[in-house]
Amino acid sequence: MIKVAIVGGTGYTGVELLRILATHPQVKVTAITSRSLKGTPVAELFPSLRGHYDLAFCEPNVEQLASCDLVFFATPHGVAQAQVPALIERGVRVVDLSADFRLKDIPSWEAWYGQQHAAPALAKEAVYGLPEVNRADIAAAQLVACPGCYPTAIQLGWIPLVEAGVVEPSELIASAASGASGAGRQAKTDLILAENSDNFRAYSAAGHRHLPEIEQGLRNIQPLGANPVKVTFVPHLLPMVRGIHATLFAKTSSSASLSPSELQMLFEQRYKDEPFVDVLPAGSHPQTRSVRGTNMCRISVMQPQDRDTLVVMSVIDNLAKGASAQAVQNMNIMFGLTETLGLESPALLP
Amino acid sequence: MIKVAIVGGTGYTGVELLRILATHPQVKVTAITSRSLKGTPVAELFPSLRGHYDLAFCEPNVEQLASCDLVFFATPHGVAQAQVPALIERGVRVVDLSADFRLKDIPSWEAWYGQQHAAPALAKEAVYGLPEVNRADIAAAQLVACPGCYPTAIQLGWIPLVEAGVVEPSELIASAASGASGAGRQAKTDLILAENSDNFRAYSAAGHRHLPEIEQGLRNIQPLGANPVKVTFVPHLLPMVRGIHATLFAKTSSSASLSPSELQMLFEQRYKDEPFVDVLPAGSHPQTRSVRGTNMCRISVMQPQDRDTLVVMSVIDNLAKGASAQAVQNMNIMFGLTETLGLESPALLP
Amino acid sequence: MIKVAIVGGTGYTGVELLRILATHPQVKVTAITSRSLKGTPVAELFPSLRGHYDLAFCEPNVEQLASCDLVFFATPHGVAQAQVPALIERGVRVVDLSADFRLKDIPSWEAWYGQQHAAPALAKEAVYGLPEVNRADIAAAQLVACPGCYPTAIQLGWIPLVEAGVVEPSELIASAASGASGAGRQAKTDLILAENSDNFRAYSAAGHRHLPEIEQGLRNIQPLGANPVKVTFVPHLLPMVRGIHATLFAKTSSSASLSPSELQMLFEQRYKDEPFVDVLPAGSHPQTRSVRGTNMCRISVMQPQDRDTLVVMSVIDNLAKGASAQAVQNMNIMFGLTETLGLESPALLP
Amino acid sequence: MIKVAIVGGTGYTGVELLRILATHPQVKVTAITSRSLKGTPVAELFPSLRGHYDLAFCEPNVEQLASCDLVFFATPHGVAQAQVPALIERGVRVVDLSADFRLKDIPSWEAWYGQQHAAPALAKEAVYGLPEVNRADIAAAQLVACPGCYPTAIQLGWIPLVEAGVVEPSELIASAASGASGAGRQAKTDLILAENSDNFRAYSAAGHRHLPEIEQGLRNIQPLGANPVKVTFVPHLLPMVRGIHATLFAKTSSSASLSPSELQMLFEQRYKDEPFVDVLPAGSHPQTRSVRGTNMCRISVMQPQDRDTLVVMSVIDNLAKGASAQAVQNMNIMFGLTETLGLESPALLP
Repeated sequence: MIKVAIVGGTGYTGVELLRILATHPQVKVTAITSRSLKGTPVAELFPSLRGHYDLAFCEPNVEQLASCDLVFFATPHGVAQAQVPALIERGVRVVDLSADFRLKDIPSWEAWYGQQHAAPALAKEAVYGLPEVNRADIAAAQLVACPGCYPTAIQLGWIPLVEAGVVEPSELIASAASGASGAGRQAKTDLILAENSDNFRAYSAAGHRHLPEIEQGLRNIQPLGANPVKVTFVPHLLPMVRGIHATLFAKTSSSASLSPSELQMLFEQRYKDEPFVDVLPAGSHPQTRSVRGTNMCRISVMQPQDRDTLVVMSVIDNLAKGASAQAVQNMNIMFGLTETLGLESPALLP
Repeated sequence: MIKVAIVGGTGYTGVELLRILATHPQVKVTAITSRSLKGTPVAELFPSLRGHYDLAFCEPNVEQLASCDLVFFATPHGVAQAQVPALIERGVRVVDLSADFRLKDIPSWEAWYGQQHAAPALAKEAVYGLPEVNRADIAAAQLVACPGCYPTAIQLGWIPLVEAGVVEPSELIASAASGASGAGRQAKTDLILAENSDNFRAYSAAGHRHLPEIEQGLRNIQPLGANPVKVTFVPHLLPMVRGIHATLFAKTSSSASLSPSELQMLFEQRYKDEPFVDVLPAGSHPQTRSVRGTNMCRISVMQPQDRDTLVVMSVIDNLAKGASAQAVQNMNIMFGLTETLGLESPALLP
Repeated sequence: MIKVAIVGGTGYTGVELLRILATHPQVKVTAITSRSLKGTPVAELFPSLRGHYDLAFCEPNVEQLASCDLVFFATPHGVAQAQVPALIERGVRVVDLSADFRLKDIPSWEAWYGQQHAAPALAKEAVYGLPEVNRADIAAAQLVACPGCYPTAIQLGWIPLVEAGVVEPSELIASAASGASGAGRQAKTDLILAENSDNFRAYSAAGHRHLPEIEQGLRNIQPLGANPVKVTFVPHLLPMVRGIHATLFAKTSSSASLSPSELQMLFEQRYKDEPFVDVLPAGSHPQTRSVRGTNMCRISVMQPQDRDTLVVMSVIDNLAKGASAQAVQNMNIMFGLTETLGLESPALLP
Repeated sequence: MIKVAIVGGTGYTGVELLRILATHPQVKVTAITSRSLKGTPVAELFPSLRGHYDLAFCEPNVEQLASCDLVFFATPHGVAQAQVPALIERGVRVVDLSADFRLKDIPSWEAWYGQQHAAPALAKEAVYGLPEVNRADIAAAQLVACPGCYPTAIQLGWIPLVEAGVVEPSELIASAASGASGAGRQAKTDLILAENSDNFRAYSAAGHRHLPEIEQGLRNIQPLGANPVKVTFVPHLLPMVRGIHATLFAKTSSSASLSPSELQMLFEQRYKDEPFVDVLPAGSHPQTRSVRGTNMCRISVMQPQDRDTLVVMSVIDNLAKGASAQAVQNMNIMFGLTETLGLESPALLP
């Protein structure tokens, strides 16, 4: 059994980790931390966990965390970079669900997050935990930076096109929408149901923190000599709880000319061995509910009107493949377990 | 491995059975029937099942069904009573999720459902599949009539009070509300999102088909000599997908006088060995999302203002404990498996 | 033109008043106060009001308020009782949408609201603004206490039965549900969409502040010598924005025996001259969306199974007839205007 | 008073017309037709209209319709083209809310709608009812083709850029999302709440019928010699009732170079005299609820990261400015009334 701790267990990525790990056959959760709720039973905050966990929230304690095989950080940005170094020194493996170790360009991180980075060297060593790109490195990593929710959905949608160099990389456009759980379990007027139900809006269209992560990830897989990836990214808030839908637009390169079946084949081939990426039959539209509660990403690709603009649609559950389930996938890879262990249940539909 | 078939797999109780059984370690689903979608892969209708089932819908065939250890009927009322007798004769065990075998009083069934019953003798032999009442009989049963969704939530809420004879049984009042999946996967204008989102309404207040089932179940557990249970039952349609919340009112018997802690104890004692009934701490209000996708029923009991009217609140997932998960619980009991097998995952929250 | 000010304009009852008054032909809104947003244009906080109001929020100022013909208080409880006395002295008329002046029993108010009442004498003078009961007094009133949302829906549902003395008044049961706007525009984790969408739960079942208001109102209309009204009241939170649905249960008095048509007639007669109470045809179920954005209350009454328990269903828009539209109805009455002025639009359906 | 009839009154555009016209001071609705519901009172189908209309649905009758000043067609495509010619001959004015007369290119109409056009000559004469482009022609028109919902939101968003020739017209990209009422009041499994709540998906990404209408409208306003407009258009279905949000992407022309304030000014100038188009302050994101139930379109424009791709966000209520309110705006123009008459109420928020 892998001994696991979760730092920052009161948010949605924390409770989602607990939900998934409750039936994982190789994991035992030994500690869940929260300074503010110290002493409160986990099942009191999250009644869905009654009968599954006897643990109470505890204060983070390096000794206790260091006694675990793996520590998940499900904390706001800025927390992990302060606490992870001490754990890394003691040989503990870490999967960080926050944004702290995702960007290699530290000045960029500091600009987007508005604070100095506390562990820049570690950020360079961290492996970006997108298994569909970095599986081997993840297996060997001590510190994995689990991708953001939008970046997961968007990168998985564009990877086949960008890797193959068949679209113009400097003119990528992503219109994506997330369920409200993506904003976290925060007491903000902007997030209350009466403000958001029966409503739809974009936000951060002028610049969202996930943009540099998306561009970094896609640039890493471009063919040599390609124009660097540039993305226009507009996120939207959906009046629902879970799910991300990314609608991606890319212009075919003048040199490339793919028939519809070649386009479909390009995606199917790229993901044929991936347990958690499902390329839908040609002509399909993926639905967010088809992945609710699961680690799956479902993708469709189309070329409307046979024109130059390709459309890719990609859906994930923002809390699952977009956060906690992907973190468990990373853990499975790091510990040499079957990659799908604990992640086998179909989506909750309807 | 238990060989299982599902008759009527295109509705919500069908897809919910498939979701649960996909990870059940002792079950293999060998056939899913649908006349109208014969030949269509199950995963084409329900994209959430892609990668989990290779089966296509097939026409119901007695030989094939008879080769199974267990057949689930997830059909509209009237279907099972026509097809089940042939399977019973051949020794197959059956769990019927429809209303066909729930009522012992055949004239009452015929009055509420507006048709003649095709297998009245079998209805009398069928065991009512509420494990919290009939566990031993279920274990020995060949035919189990799985309870309705409202009757499950409502009976579990009242059982401790009615069994103990501490409330006036002829004046029970149930105000209950269900997510829209309770109405099934039907093409009706009344069910479309634009008619129901941001809307709430009662329906069938003058008489709902689940009423005689609720009264039958509660009368069966009354103390000798008690006035027979009579229930006023008003169901409501919630602008959401899954979940039933029953708010139950009962007047304390003039002879009975329970203190708040005795009341709480009565419920805790009654369900202390039940894996799927969770009595919440005094003062709590159960939430439907706390049981989403699970076989749990969570219950609270209160005595507002120390007056004579007790309030019980009971929540279940209408498709899970209210239908398919309870059907699997019945199957586990019938085949001597651990009762919780395949039903261990916590609820999807948020 | 009636010169009007609104104290506390940043909440939902404030913006609803502004929405209604924007097209009221006899009203000019001259001031909207908010200490925290002083100087912010109203249309910046509520983009729906762009083009309708040039006003900015201002600090409350007695001189300015005293120059108005009418001041609406759309404030949290405790605010109006501190500020209203100065206005009353100067002869300004006031409609208070908060709970401050609703209860005549000051100790009860103080117990339920947990603070000392600052203007008990004024509370006794205030007229309870339910026009269907107190129209004449409202016309003459200087201070009107606008009813709460649940009390409006529930009293209107029971008034015909309680006035006529045909039900047992000490065993009334109300199961009611409200859209999330009823909880106000507050930054609370419990109110965010991710916690409430696809979820349903009761709250304050042990005792809600609207209970004494409901009981006070109904006791005032009871026949002489009747047992005093006692209500068991369980409110619930709906995953939607606007609307209250009250499902009311009452036991017929042993002496009274009404046929279904007499029951229907009792309601139709009671409300035949009321412009904002609509008794639906026998057998109907009212829907909250049928009154969305309007001052209407729609009501149905039934006697299920011809048993002793009557069921009344009553719907209003919690922000409209449950607050701001009813406040405007009161204003119209106080100033001798046509009672329906500015309140004529049909509901927004779908 | 203008005598008005509505052909096809049982759908959402029909009931929305009735809602708006109920308080329009210059209109009297004299007939509402429906073959299937002939004789049913309108207020029985739509309880929101109780007390507002005494009419019952009647069969369409040319004599009766011809006695009106104006006939609105709120019918499925194919109906108006069969019935309108007889009315036009008799001098009646017509506003058609369906797609029948929107496209000038008849072969294109026939290809997209899969049937022969019954009145091609009339289609050429019809005026496209987007007042912000065709106000003068509408005033003089006998037959107005009211724009589709997506085309209204999308054209209004792009008009300033396309008219000014500052973006590359052949690479326009529209990612738009609609509330479920856009699909109409139809009994389809795909539309039921249990299939769509807590879900988001694109549809018709390979080609939607509104595409040729959008391209036609924008081509009509292009500067001479520009590359013809080509649009990639992906519509999505939102889990809510009303509202369209269009997120529009356009590449700046190599020749044009606008500063952020010039860009903002371009939009503000274009719409400064338009009563129903509201350009939000720079940096804002429009919300669908800010226009709920109104004829407003609210628009924002941004240039993220100062790159070459402009982002425009445009919101309308699909049933109001996207259908019935715009039809009333057209009527007001046709009859020389104040253009905003009957359309003055602010949006219902929350």
